[in-house]
Amino acid sequence: MKLLDQTLQRIKPLDARAMAKAQAHLDELTKPPGSLGALEDIARRLAGIRGEVPRRLSRKAHILMAGDHGVVAEGVSAFPQEVTPQMVFNFSRGGAAINVLARHASAELVLVDIGVASDLPELPGLLKRKVAPGTANLARGPAMTREQAIAALEVGIEVASAKIEAGNELLGIGEMGIGNTTPSSAILAVFSGRPVEEITGRGTGVDANRLRLKIKAIQQGLAINNPNPDDPLDVLAKVGGLEIAGMAGVILAGVAMRVPVIIDGFISGAAALVATRLAPLAGEFILASHLSEEPGHAVALELMGLKPMLTMQMRLGEGTGAALGMTLVDAAIMIYHEMATFSQAGISGALKS
Amino acid sequence: MKLLDQTLQRIKPLDARAMAKAQAHLDELTKPPGSLGALEDIARRLAGIRGEVPRRLSRKAHILMAGDHGVVAEGVSAFPQEVTPQMVFNFSRGGAAINVLARHASAELVLVDIGVASDLPELPGLLKRKVAPGTANLARGPAMTREQAIAALEVGIEVASAKIEAGNELLGIGEMGIGNTTPSSAILAVFSGRPVEEITGRGTGVDANRLRLKIKAIQQGLAINNPNPDDPLDVLAKVGGLEIAGMAGVILAGVAMRVPVIIDGFISGAAALVATRLAPLAGEFILASHLSEEPGHAVALELMGLKPMLTMQMRLGEGTGAALGMTLVDAAIMIYHEMATFSQAGISGALKS
Repeated sequence: MKLLDQTLQRIKPLDARAMAKAQAHLDELTKPPGSLGALEDIARRLAGIRGEVPRRLSRKAHILMAGDHGVVAEGVSAFPQEVTPQMVFNFSRGGAAINVLARHASAELVLVDIGVASDLPELPGLLKRKVAPGTANLARGPAMTREQAIAALEVGIEVASAKIEAGNELLGIGEMGIGNTTPSSAILAVFSGRPVEEITGRGTGVDANRLRLKIKAIQQGLAINNPNPDDPLDVLAKVGGLEIAGMAGVILAGVAMRVPVIIDGFISGAAALVATRLAPLAGEFILASHLSEEPGHAVALELMGLKPMLTMQMRLGEGTGAALGMTLVDAAIMIYHEMATFSQAGISGALKS
Repeated sequence: MKLLDQTLQRIKPLDARAMAKAQAHLDELTKPPGSLGALEDIARRLAGIRGEVPRRLSRKAHILMAGDHGVVAEGVSAFPQEVTPQMVFNFSRGGAAINVLARHASAELVLVDIGVASDLPELPGLLKRKVAPGTANLARGPAMTREQAIAALEVGIEVASAKIEAGNELLGIGEMGIGNTTPSSAILAVFSGRPVEEITGRGTGVDANRLRLKIKAIQQGLAINNPNPDDPLDVLAKVGGLEIAGMAGVILAGVAMRVPVIIDGFISGAAALVATRLAPLAGEFILASHLSEEPGHAVALELMGLKPMLTMQMRLGEGTGAALGMTLVDAAIMIYHEMATFSQAGISGALKS
């Protein structure tokens, strides 16, 4: 709790002066003002976070949190829980989609076992930071104790802090955990007040029958646990997940240490919701990447005032959308530093309208 | 006409066998089937176009066509026509947004004067292929003769063919031409049958007054010229533009020579519409990049059955969205070749559901 509190206390707003300076520079570049949309928004926000737009991102890290979910006992997922550790092996060997897309984005992949149900051996690149061997079944009682939720948040803070201290200037987040769209929908239901059936989808691909079981499990979990929407730790503990808490911790560390965090799809969106409820300023430090196929994702992004940049019909998780989004952050930085200004180009301000 | 006809005659459908083979491979990769959405679609289409998914794109070229528009006399643009040549100088010196984003995508920028109204000197990287010094005012008569439209299409075919012969495996298209959202809306109005006011927007940023002038100019142009929607060359000549014809030619050459073409926003979307009316199979070879802020763009993409991958609130043109999209094509190729299969990863097909 001490690390979490210290982290929350370090959070300060964006640097408005640096943003105004960045805006003035963007408006001098040879294009109609605002015509590069999200690229300009990213540059402006980087200035607000870092104090200036970095010349380049010298290092980027993508943090992937793996954890299991007791709620799979309700039949909410099409896949057995063994897939979580099998995929951790795959990540460790470099064969999963996120390995490929992290390479594409020149980002280091940081793999964290924060709550896989089975014991994992030592694996190359795997940080063993297990808080518990999976959560309890949220449909029958709290998924985690409040202490476990805090411990998982603090694992995220510690892992992210170490990566930031090692020079990473952009963090991505992603996850692996069979069944984890279920707690994500539960978290979103609490914070949005929307009906569960409206914001619950097919995850990686359940059929209509399992979708009914999933909705029922969430409704039952909310009824039994009665999470308090004004107490984000209560919501996270009762209907969340270890990897969701870990990702929220990464976001909070990024905000406190002034490094932007790019989120992925629905599950990291739920983590971002928790982080922004714990620290309302956090939303300004979060970059949205893609719009997931999961129906609740757009709702979560809208609650945080975030706009996705990619619409690729992706629904894999792992942080695959976040990794693709990292290349757009690189592009925004290049635009800011490499475009000519009107005076350099000898254009008589005509495009400034 | 001979080159255009020859090009159209070379067009063949996608290779269905190669696509089925690519699909089978995609379904063996360690992810739920289809969960990488557009990345999988790109890989499948590359197989259909090339016969197999290339190991990597050894070379990429972004072709930028510049041309002027007589319809600016109607007050349809916020910017004076001198901005077109000023921006060509900027492109030639490497200072514009498209220069930066082509570098980001490791693509060569190919700059073509296909119809700038003023005389341009020899400039580094500029291909001087002027068909006419701008179009005539489409609000008062045909923008081009049929012969000019064909000549401009053939310039596009020639430029693209040379780049393909030089080893480029992906072409991007973009444009510069003050006033060119006006002919684009006119083309879209003819092919979609939608009311002009519904598919005409503010371009790079006109006010409400100029938007009224723009809508009026298009309506008048359609009434005076009466373009025949069943004759794409008639539409292109009467209410199109030289750079629009050039980009359509690039697409046709790509289709004929089996190289995918990634389009940009509204204006290249209008060029793609012309190309797909001339060669209905062309749509399968076109990759959409971003969704422009221009209201007609979504309509044009839907007419062609294309889905944009990027939603970045961009409205600059030049091919900036197409260049960003090129990096997503690279990512799709890496996914196809670098991910582990279920058997390689020792995952018991569990994710195959």
